[in-house]
Amino acid sequence: MPHYQVHELGGFFKPESIAVIGVSREIASLGGTSFLQRHLDAEYAGRLYPINPKASEILGLKAYPSLSSLPEVPDLVMIAVRADLVPASLEECARKGVRYVHVLTAGFSETGTREGRELEKQLADVAEQHNLLVMGPNCMGPYCPASRLTAWGAIPGRDGHLGVISQSGGITQRFTEYVSSLGMDVSKAASIGNATVLDSPDFLEFMAGDDDIRLIAIYQENIRNGRRFFDLARELSPRKPIVMLKGGESEQGAATVESHTGRMAGNQRVWKAFFKQTGVVPVSNMNEWADACLTFSYLPKTRGRGVFIIGGGGGNSVISSDACIRAGLDVPKLSPKSMEGIRPFVPAAGSIAGNPLDHWELFLNPELLLKVLDIAYADPGISMVIVDRLIPRIAFHGPGFPDAVPEITGFIKTHPHRKPTVFTVDYDGGDPDLIRKGSLLRSRFCEAGVPAFPSFERAIGALARFQKYCNYFASL
Amino acid sequence: MPHYQVHELGGFFKPESIAVIGVSREIASLGGTSFLQRHLDAEYAGRLYPINPKASEILGLKAYPSLSSLPEVPDLVMIAVRADLVPASLEECARKGVRYVHVLTAGFSETGTREGRELEKQLADVAEQHNLLVMGPNCMGPYCPASRLTAWGAIPGRDGHLGVISQSGGITQRFTEYVSSLGMDVSKAASIGNATVLDSPDFLEFMAGDDDIRLIAIYQENIRNGRRFFDLARELSPRKPIVMLKGGESEQGAATVESHTGRMAGNQRVWKAFFKQTGVVPVSNMNEWADACLTFSYLPKTRGRGVFIIGGGGGNSVISSDACIRAGLDVPKLSPKSMEGIRPFVPAAGSIAGNPLDHWELFLNPELLLKVLDIAYADPGISMVIVDRLIPRIAFHGPGFPDAVPEITGFIKTHPHRKPTVFTVDYDGGDPDLIRKGSLLRSRFCEAGVPAFPSFERAIGALARFQKYCNYFASL
Repeated sequence: MPHYQVHELGGFFKPESIAVIGVSREIASLGGTSFLQRHLDAEYAGRLYPINPKASEILGLKAYPSLSSLPEVPDLVMIAVRADLVPASLEECARKGVRYVHVLTAGFSETGTREGRELEKQLADVAEQHNLLVMGPNCMGPYCPASRLTAWGAIPGRDGHLGVISQSGGITQRFTEYVSSLGMDVSKAASIGNATVLDSPDFLEFMAGDDDIRLIAIYQENIRNGRRFFDLARELSPRKPIVMLKGGESEQGAATVESHTGRMAGNQRVWKAFFKQTGVVPVSNMNEWADACLTFSYLPKTRGRGVFIIGGGGGNSVISSDACIRAGLDVPKLSPKSMEGIRPFVPAAGSIAGNPLDHWELFLNPELLLKVLDIAYADPGISMVIVDRLIPRIAFHGPGFPDAVPEITGFIKTHPHRKPTVFTVDYDGGDPDLIRKGSLLRSRFCEAGVPAFPSFERAIGALARFQKYCNYFASL
Repeated sequence: MPHYQVHELGGFFKPESIAVIGVSREIASLGGTSFLQRHLDAEYAGRLYPINPKASEILGLKAYPSLSSLPEVPDLVMIAVRADLVPASLEECARKGVRYVHVLTAGFSETGTREGRELEKQLADVAEQHNLLVMGPNCMGPYCPASRLTAWGAIPGRDGHLGVISQSGGITQRFTEYVSSLGMDVSKAASIGNATVLDSPDFLEFMAGDDDIRLIAIYQENIRNGRRFFDLARELSPRKPIVMLKGGESEQGAATVESHTGRMAGNQRVWKAFFKQTGVVPVSNMNEWADACLTFSYLPKTRGRGVFIIGGGGGNSVISSDACIRAGLDVPKLSPKSMEGIRPFVPAAGSIAGNPLDHWELFLNPELLLKVLDIAYADPGISMVIVDRLIPRIAFHGPGFPDAVPEITGFIKTHPHRKPTVFTVDYDGGDPDLIRKGSLLRSRFCEAGVPAFPSFERAIGALARFQKYCNYFASL
């Protein structure tokens, strides 16, 4: 294990120069050259050095035959050569005085071969010997929108407050793209792969001290130093929520973990205890992960379990109530005072005045919706609000709904007694234009800081996780 | 209860003339006039008669002052007058000799008032006395694409093989639109609301004998004649699968049921036993309902639990394996013979040869995917296949993927040893164009008869339900 001060890991995320070893003259599908191209596409502002013994220029950049021939010590080196050549490249880094290395290359212990395991051991030994800070191997490395630093395409997004630590490059790519496209931006992401040298506790400790990061999302398959991870997570979790996608829960998933990152997934009972004792929030898939991040990023804390459902239709109200209860939340009756406020504008026939509130006009008349929200925020039995927001579609009567997103989100965000409020905009049918409209509407809510979800079940799942977290620490 | 022969209920779905009572001269948001407009939009081919005592023409159609003044006995009457006027309208129907009546009007027992309950009792009495076949009240009535008959907008879809019985008009609208847009077309839908006269067992019995219907989707909140429903369902379910969304599972949901359709939701334990003893497939929400219909419509039967996952990425493969196990399915090792077939084209580094199979090239090279499917169809341990199909997105290297939907679906549909095979095309981020692309890709698979889902979890949930159903009847 190399020696370093915690804050030093920040160096991975703001290099002013990057050398890439393993750059061919053609753009291969996943080689170093394509990564170089991504940095160019993302308008990385620092100096880029392709290393290739035979080329003088690659992608319009001056190429160098070796690290030693570079005019400076690069802040970061990305190694993309064949696995068996990686130890020698690391030695070269050490000779040049490089400190930060990202090993992209796969083909180590995750192959399940003795050769792979030995190569990984060699990599660890060289790093230890020369005190190299190594991210990887078998990973996509560091990502930082503020530095226009991205190994995964020209989507650096905007600078945000989410920290990501992940053992899967693919998942990190998809996740950062996913959340950024919803306006929930990333500060720093570390795709750490086999995590042979620097592991998730190292990056967790770093992100704990990084004031730019307010929420941490982790994809974890296994852990070497469980005790350290546990202590860090327990200390951090009350002030910076940690939402964790744990891969390898099942025996079969754990077997895949070995093929993926070459490590053991650990005992599932240990992980259950971990979540219970740290307050770290577990999720099971990418959607739950993003959904949870939305609620944790945007909602004011809450302790109560009472959900007010502003629904679309009678049957939907029934199904939604069931879903709330199934998720461990409640659908309480409104207070007499709230009912007094609501009854005058809800007709007796074809609507339901109460909780859920089923009243068609709420889609057409934003003023009325704000009035209802105001009533809900004043009702002591109500802790959270879900609004089902239909997208205009031909099945419904009436040409469309007024665009009231700015009015609605403005009202919620500035309300002195606002409670966690989320929207559901669902459409999973086959009409590409309707799904486009729905997505657009959702992202406009999200961009404005009001979570919107593609189904009621996902909304309620995210609210339930959030409420559980708030309650966990409130009751300690 | 009126007397009728089962097949007579077919009359609701192929009327050659419809009279609408309760048509104002302006298009109100939900009144009879707007329904009339929908029938015109849908190009209903029969004769339409607006009934209005003061108008001579409505929406370009000749209006009549009363039912009695019509030149014929209409095949169907839709009643859209105020609730307290409904019994008189029914009497008028009886005098004219009408047999089929759809009562759209709400405001009966679901209001929770004594007045509402009494009105509903009156409605039942008039129907009984004159032997009227009444659908409703508080519902959207019959829907039949083959007759261009639709109360819910100009989306009659194409004639298909799905039968729908539902106590919620809104849910029926959304559901029929949803499945039709995925190319899974409806034969007949009955939105029966409070189901005061004709109830779900009546329509279930009718659909049992309707050869156009191969699969039945039911949204049920409560049941009056539980024994009859149970017997019918148990008899029918082995030959025509019944997928049922049961509303009012929780106490709170059941309370909403009373406000919605004015009836009791029934004991949850009774419903659990019902599902266990009939083989009817329970689902919890609209998406699960549509997903299940996709698998039941298109997949060949299967008994085994072994799923082969053709995945996208190492981390994803881990998460997907976990999801399979959680759903009660299995992710078995491939046979030695299958491994022999797969190893040659899966590189050792950066991919995983096995189950899940993680190999990037499968997205780029459809030939290779077909080769892998062929291997899976021959592997005795594999009973089902899920393929994760990415949509082209900027986060990934490479400009796009070849369009191989016709090639892939053709291969699957005509393979002599095909096994249930589904696709996952997921994207829930905020980019409206990507979500549009994903939706388009999904619906192209579905239209070709190969189910495609917006998330792995939904795909595996649908497969698990399907496999359970197949096994249930195979083991009886």
